[in-house]
Amino acid sequence: MKLKVEVLPITTGGNRIAILSEESASLLGVHSSDRIRIQFCDREMIAIANIAAHYPHKRIGLYEETVAALGVKEDDTVSVLLAPLPESLYKVRAKLRGERLREKDVVTIVKDVVERHLSSAEVAAFLTALSINGLSTSENEALSRAMVATGKTISFGEGPILDKHSVGGIPGDKTSMLVVPIVAAAGYTIPKTSSRAITSPAGTADRVETLCPVCLGIDEIKKVVAKTNGCLVWGGALELAPADDLFIQVEYPLGIDPMLLPSILSKKTAMGATHVAIDIPTGMGAKIKTRTEAYTLASDFVDLGKRLGLNIQCALTFGDQPLGCGIGPALEAKEALETLMGEGPLDLRDKAVSLAGMLFEMVGMENGQSQAEDIIDSGKAEAKMREIISAQGGNPKIKPDDIPVGPEFAEVASDRAGKVIWLSTEDIVRVAREAGAPKEKGAGIILHSKLGENVHKDSVLFEIYAERSSKLASALELAKRLSPVVLTQKPAEKMILDRVPEKFAHEKTFSLDR
Amino acid sequence: MKLKVEVLPITTGGNRIAILSEESASLLGVHSSDRIRIQFCDREMIAIANIAAHYPHKRIGLYEETVAALGVKEDDTVSVLLAPLPESLYKVRAKLRGERLREKDVVTIVKDVVERHLSSAEVAAFLTALSINGLSTSENEALSRAMVATGKTISFGEGPILDKHSVGGIPGDKTSMLVVPIVAAAGYTIPKTSSRAITSPAGTADRVETLCPVCLGIDEIKKVVAKTNGCLVWGGALELAPADDLFIQVEYPLGIDPMLLPSILSKKTAMGATHVAIDIPTGMGAKIKTRTEAYTLASDFVDLGKRLGLNIQCALTFGDQPLGCGIGPALEAKEALETLMGEGPLDLRDKAVSLAGMLFEMVGMENGQSQAEDIIDSGKAEAKMREIISAQGGNPKIKPDDIPVGPEFAEVASDRAGKVIWLSTEDIVRVAREAGAPKEKGAGIILHSKLGENVHKDSVLFEIYAERSSKLASALELAKRLSPVVLTQKPAEKMILDRVPEKFAHEKTFSLDR
Repeated sequence: MKLKVEVLPITTGGNRIAILSEESASLLGVHSSDRIRIQFCDREMIAIANIAAHYPHKRIGLYEETVAALGVKEDDTVSVLLAPLPESLYKVRAKLRGERLREKDVVTIVKDVVERHLSSAEVAAFLTALSINGLSTSENEALSRAMVATGKTISFGEGPILDKHSVGGIPGDKTSMLVVPIVAAAGYTIPKTSSRAITSPAGTADRVETLCPVCLGIDEIKKVVAKTNGCLVWGGALELAPADDLFIQVEYPLGIDPMLLPSILSKKTAMGATHVAIDIPTGMGAKIKTRTEAYTLASDFVDLGKRLGLNIQCALTFGDQPLGCGIGPALEAKEALETLMGEGPLDLRDKAVSLAGMLFEMVGMENGQSQAEDIIDSGKAEAKMREIISAQGGNPKIKPDDIPVGPEFAEVASDRAGKVIWLSTEDIVRVAREAGAPKEKGAGIILHSKLGENVHKDSVLFEIYAERSSKLASALELAKRLSPVVLTQKPAEKMILDRVPEKFAHEKTFSLDR
Repeated sequence: MKLKVEVLPITTGGNRIAILSEESASLLGVHSSDRIRIQFCDREMIAIANIAAHYPHKRIGLYEETVAALGVKEDDTVSVLLAPLPESLYKVRAKLRGERLREKDVVTIVKDVVERHLSSAEVAAFLTALSINGLSTSENEALSRAMVATGKTISFGEGPILDKHSVGGIPGDKTSMLVVPIVAAAGYTIPKTSSRAITSPAGTADRVETLCPVCLGIDEIKKVVAKTNGCLVWGGALELAPADDLFIQVEYPLGIDPMLLPSILSKKTAMGATHVAIDIPTGMGAKIKTRTEAYTLASDFVDLGKRLGLNIQCALTFGDQPLGCGIGPALEAKEALETLMGEGPLDLRDKAVSLAGMLFEMVGMENGQSQAEDIIDSGKAEAKMREIISAQGGNPKIKPDDIPVGPEFAEVASDRAGKVIWLSTEDIVRVAREAGAPKEKGAGIILHSKLGENVHKDSVLFEIYAERSSKLASALELAKRLSPVVLTQKPAEKMILDRVPEKFAHEKTFSLDR
């Protein structure tokens, strides 16, 4: 069938969609989501048909990417015919029926995700099936490899390449900002890429960005690492495993995260990592709630790492409350810098030296943790951090107080005395985000009391920081309603946690940050 | 945030999507698929945000439906802010986690599907979860009711309203074209709506359309039924259960059909049916392969019918081969008309009088089947069919030979003698569709030998009909490659059905036709 092109002046970010009228679709025998082959001169391409009710007959609507790929212009005539469904879609259907996918099936799917031959509905169905049926180790391995193969990779040359990653889930976790300079100061290469917050108040990229630029290109990253042994950059624009970015976009509204293992390990593989410490925060306040889940995930990581040629160790870390006191990009960066300078909260310092020490022992050093402590105490970690800040284009002389926070802030005080027995991380995340984090970098929370601490009546439980007074007000109101810090006289005095008088829906919180 | 409207000159069939630049999305804290509230003067609406990489900053792209709903025009300034995710999406997420949905949850989801507040990716995830986890009877009931409540309904007044429906799956099944006139001739009301083929060579609407128009409006249908007691119309444009049409669009590429029960029964309820005979073709050639599956489905139908106030009986019918000999819209209409006129294949006649007889007995008549036979033999069924054809706007005097078939045709002969032990319905469907069915109404197949029949060398196994010689040639080539009619000397002589020398993927055939 011959149809005239209508150029739709929209870039869809790669989606290969063509709009057809109901009449043309009917004549071609095309149903919505069927594939059509579009030919123009000696070029051709496959697109996904979207059938629009009142679209003009004899027309085909093409988005800018398709127009460019075919080399057509408005009113050009193209030939259109029904094309078979892609092989990858049959493999998606097999997964929907519960079948195990072979490596070549996974390769077909990932390739077609990256090249946009599968619609978002088809990708959503695939991810839902993975989420419900689970993935075998072979499928995880095949997905990791396919995600690496369809993206860019970076080589940092000989020698061990170290990395550290958290599966995410507790607010205030700025550990990477300490581990990277400690490890780099010991002479090891640790090129750390990280993400921005999706569902949390801050990602490592958001935190570091208050100190220096994080959006570096591959060549710039190589220069920074050559100079300093380390870096702390945003991984989002490097196209390291572009399939993962597309999967996350679809997972986000659905609240599912079936690709956690291949998502993390494909990016580590693409960065050439050889030794990786994986942090699994475990507890009521974390993504992973129980030790059983944590050990299962840890052993899956180690196993998958072995298959991919990565030396992996996992650490189950205390995940019942936020790490340190600051929550929000600027407040966390400040706390990380203070801790590198010898001050700051002990839990943060302990977590950083433990994880750095674990990495040291993985590459053959002895007494890793005390070596890491020495590197902080000697000031070498701080000096290394300043080197990295400078190499990435920031001010190496920055002091903690130079990092702008607030300027609006307010205290939330206790209405009675007691001991803190429960800190709802979910509610703290909600309040910090209501205050403006992560978009408004000076917004967030400083905790004044943590688990087990005694609180007097009128003691400050936490402070809320915001860049705008309207945000501060709504965060304060939310904080009062949620009461995220729970007090009692003694830990076991209040045995009833909550009452359920009628059937009701408990909304689980979903975190995609990792 | 204030953004300037860019009108995107496309009707998307109702999707409420707004295009934002990465910069605006980042400032609003909006991720792809997040919801945004768009305000203009005193109007506002919620849309799903699509973030486009190179979309101009300060612009928001709105499709025509959204533009009309808001009353905006090009370059108007609208206010945009992040909106919470819809309640229905949380219920979809609950289903993804394997939770059972309550009636009000289902209502929320179906309403938001019809009003386009859920994206196709979200609907796909929901349907995938239903397909994998299955539906409880309560969920099936709630879905049926919600799908009726969100669509139109038709009332045909007092008295029993009969209906007949096949869950689909064997080619050549033109039974409805006989059951409707038999039942209507007995004085009962039977307003039959049916679908067009999606994955098969002909749907009832495609078949009937070779005799008379089938795209009637609700008022026209009422007139036809008032005059003749019956009708045979296309249900697709009546908006009886619009959610179902949207679900089917998403299910089609995914090859899943979790909503079979509510899909069928919502449409029967919307038509006011009181007594429904459900045909479940059962066998190697049908959608339902085994008796166990068929009995489970049948009892689910009866149970769900009871909950919805419908009197339902199911018939398990022989589903090992096509019904009758003609396959393809015109060839099937011709055969149906011949059978009403006292000729035609015996299996078709038997199936029609059995099902009509079952309906007669459901409303209290005795010896239903022999009453149905009398109605055919007396010519009353044929006369009633001609009345219906006339009332729907066709020529009541049409003779079987007036229905145009072909004009291209070719015979496929046997290369040896033997007995037919296997007729691959899947392969027959592929050949008939390759010949042009269902779009080209004269295309299809006439079977000359069926199961158990003896065939000589050079006997004609089947004929292929096409409207174009190129289609005939490619269908012939496919028929030779597939050899859909399998011969042997005696049924059990060839015990090995197939060999599997290595791991390979057997693609299951998917049929959405019902």
